[in-house]
Amino acid sequence: MQDTGDKVRYKIAVDAMGGDYAPAEIIKGAFQAADKLGVEIILVGLKSSIEAELVKQNVNRPVTIIDAPDMIKDGEEPAYAVMRKKNNSIAVATKLVKEGKADAVVSAGNTGAVMVCALQYLGTLPGIERPIAGGTFCGLSPETMIMDLGANVGVKPLHLLNFAVAGSIYMQSLHGIENPTVAILSVGAEEGKGNEVTKEAYTLLKNSNLNFIGNVEGMDIPLGKANVIVCDGFVGNVIVKFAEGLGHVLSRWLNREMKDELPAEKLAVYGQKLYEILSPAVAMGGGPLIGVNGIAAIGHGASNAAQIVATIKNAHTALESGFVDILREELQKMQKGAKDAY
Amino acid sequence: MQDTGDKVRYKIAVDAMGGDYAPAEIIKGAFQAADKLGVEIILVGLKSSIEAELVKQNVNRPVTIIDAPDMIKDGEEPAYAVMRKKNNSIAVATKLVKEGKADAVVSAGNTGAVMVCALQYLGTLPGIERPIAGGTFCGLSPETMIMDLGANVGVKPLHLLNFAVAGSIYMQSLHGIENPTVAILSVGAEEGKGNEVTKEAYTLLKNSNLNFIGNVEGMDIPLGKANVIVCDGFVGNVIVKFAEGLGHVLSRWLNREMKDELPAEKLAVYGQKLYEILSPAVAMGGGPLIGVNGIAAIGHGASNAAQIVATIKNAHTALESGFVDILREELQKMQKGAKDAY
Repeated sequence: MQDTGDKVRYKIAVDAMGGDYAPAEIIKGAFQAADKLGVEIILVGLKSSIEAELVKQNVNRPVTIIDAPDMIKDGEEPAYAVMRKKNNSIAVATKLVKEGKADAVVSAGNTGAVMVCALQYLGTLPGIERPIAGGTFCGLSPETMIMDLGANVGVKPLHLLNFAVAGSIYMQSLHGIENPTVAILSVGAEEGKGNEVTKEAYTLLKNSNLNFIGNVEGMDIPLGKANVIVCDGFVGNVIVKFAEGLGHVLSRWLNREMKDELPAEKLAVYGQKLYEILSPAVAMGGGPLIGVNGIAAIGHGASNAAQIVATIKNAHTALESGFVDILREELQKMQKGAKDAY
Repeated sequence: MQDTGDKVRYKIAVDAMGGDYAPAEIIKGAFQAADKLGVEIILVGLKSSIEAELVKQNVNRPVTIIDAPDMIKDGEEPAYAVMRKKNNSIAVATKLVKEGKADAVVSAGNTGAVMVCALQYLGTLPGIERPIAGGTFCGLSPETMIMDLGANVGVKPLHLLNFAVAGSIYMQSLHGIENPTVAILSVGAEEGKGNEVTKEAYTLLKNSNLNFIGNVEGMDIPLGKANVIVCDGFVGNVIVKFAEGLGHVLSRWLNREMKDELPAEKLAVYGQKLYEILSPAVAMGGGPLIGVNGIAAIGHGASNAAQIVATIKNAHTALESGFVDILREELQKMQKGAKDAY
C-alpha cells in the first residue's frame, strides 16, 4: 500500500483474464473501481491482450500491467491447472500479494484455481485447513451470510465453530454489524434437531462467546433470522445454486404469467430484478475468501464491470477494516483456548 | 374397498382433527373428494366436534364417524404423544387401515405422529427402515420429486438407492411417467463431485437398472432436470423450507416492487401465485409416505379444503395404481439381488 497523506492507497491486483467477459468488462470495472475507491490497479494477464483492450477502450491513464502468459479456463481441474500453468494470471496476481507488491487479488476466473493459489501463496489462518467460501448470498436478506457455500464439503463440528467465528468477524468488518447473530442451519429449531455434526456443533457454539441464537431452518434464510448461518458446504452450495436456478425460472414465469398486465419491456426489467435478488453473486459482486492469510476475492464468472467494481469494493473494505488481522487474532485466541482446555 | 360394479369404491379414513383449519376445512375437503373421486369417507376424531361441525356445515348425507377422543397437537414430540394418547385420531385412523376397514389414511396433523403411527400399525416394506417423505415439491418443475424431504437424516449410500427405486415407482404410479430419470443431488455434475455418501451412491445407482442420469446441482431442481432427485433428508428439508420461505418473502417483494404498476388486488393475486408455486405442499396437496406397507398420506398443516381434496386424490391414485404392491415387489427383487450378490 501507499500512504498518500490523508488516506492509504491500496494496490489491487486484478486478474484481467478471469471471467466470461474478460478482459473487456474486467478492465472497465477495474478503472471504475480505481476512480470510485481511490485504489491503484495492477492488471495481470496476457500483456498483448490487455494492451489491445486498453487501445480499444481508449484508455490514456497510466496503469501497471504484469504479464501472465498462461491461462486457466473455467472447468479446468484447478490444482492440476495451477501446477502445470505456472504463469497463469491468478497465480501471478496472488504472488504479487505474497510479495507485498499488491494488497489484494481479485479474480472472476476459475474459483478452484483462486482457492488453490490462495492456499499455496498466502496460506491459511491458524486453525483453518482450507479457505471458507462464505458471504451474504440472498438479496432478500442482505445482512445474512452463509458459511460455507461449497468450499468445505464434509465438515466436522469444530469447522462449524470456525465458520461461526470467521463469519461473525466478516459481518462486523465488512457489513458493520455489531455483535452479529449466529445460527446453525438445521431441520428444526429445537436443540435436538439435526444430524450428528450440527448437534455437536450446537454444544460448541452454545459454549462460545458468540451471539449464538440456536438452530434456524431453510425458511429463515430469506427471512434473515441470523447474520451468520453456518452449514456444511454441501448444503450451502445446493442452496445458493437452487436460488440462482429459481431466479432464472421465476423470471421466465413472471414474464409469462403477467404478460397481459404489462408491456414486455417492463416485465423484462422486473424479471431481471427477480433474477438478481436471488443471485446476488451477480447483483452484489463477490467477496474475499475467508480464512486466507491475505485478501483474495472471487467474483462471479459472469461478472460485468459493475460486479467487478462491487468485488473490488468488498476487497477494499476488507483491507480498510483490517479483517484478516482481526480474524487471525480471534482464531489464535481460540487455538490457545482449545490448548488450555487440555 | 367395495366393488360397486364398474369401479372399486375405496374407503378413506380422514383425520378430521389434524391441521390448522380442522375440523371445518378437513370435513369440507373430505366431502368434496368423495363427490369428485367417488371414494367413501370415514371421519375420525372427537365425535362431538365432528357432529357439531356437520350441523354447522348443514351436511345431511350419511357418513361414518369413528370416535377418537385424544388429540395430538402440532409441535408435540410424536413418539411420546402417540404412546401416551392411544386414542388419538391419527392412530385410530391408521388402525382402520391395518384392520382392513379403510384403504388409506389421510392426515394434515402432526407429521411425526403420522409417521410413527404408519410405522407402528402398517410397518415398512422390505429393506426400508423408516418411511420416506418424498414428493414433487416445486411448482416450477411439477414432474420432479425430491427423496427425502426430512424424514431420513444421516442416510447411507444404500438408502439413496432405496430412495431412487421407490421414487421411480412413485413417479410411474402417481404421475404416469414411463422410465423416470433419476439423479443424485450434489455440488457438481461430474461423477467425482460430492461427499462420501453421494460418491458411493453414484456407483450403486450407475450399476442399477434405473434410468440414472448422474449428479444434478441445486439449479437443476427448478429446471426439472430429473424426475427423481435423491438426497439426504437434511438437505431436502432445508431446500423445501427455503423455497417456502422464499415464496413468502418474494410475494411481499412483488407487492412492494410493482406497487406503481398494478392495483393492489391484482398484485395480491400474483403474489399468492408466486407463493404457491414455491410451496406446492400447499398448492398441490400432500402425498403418501413412501415405503410404508399401506397408504398413509400426509397433508400440509395449513391445508384448506382444496388441499385436502388434492391429498386424498394422491392417496386415491396410489391405491388405483397399486403403488404399494409394485414397490413391495421391486424392493423384494432388490433384497434378493443383494443377497445373491454375497
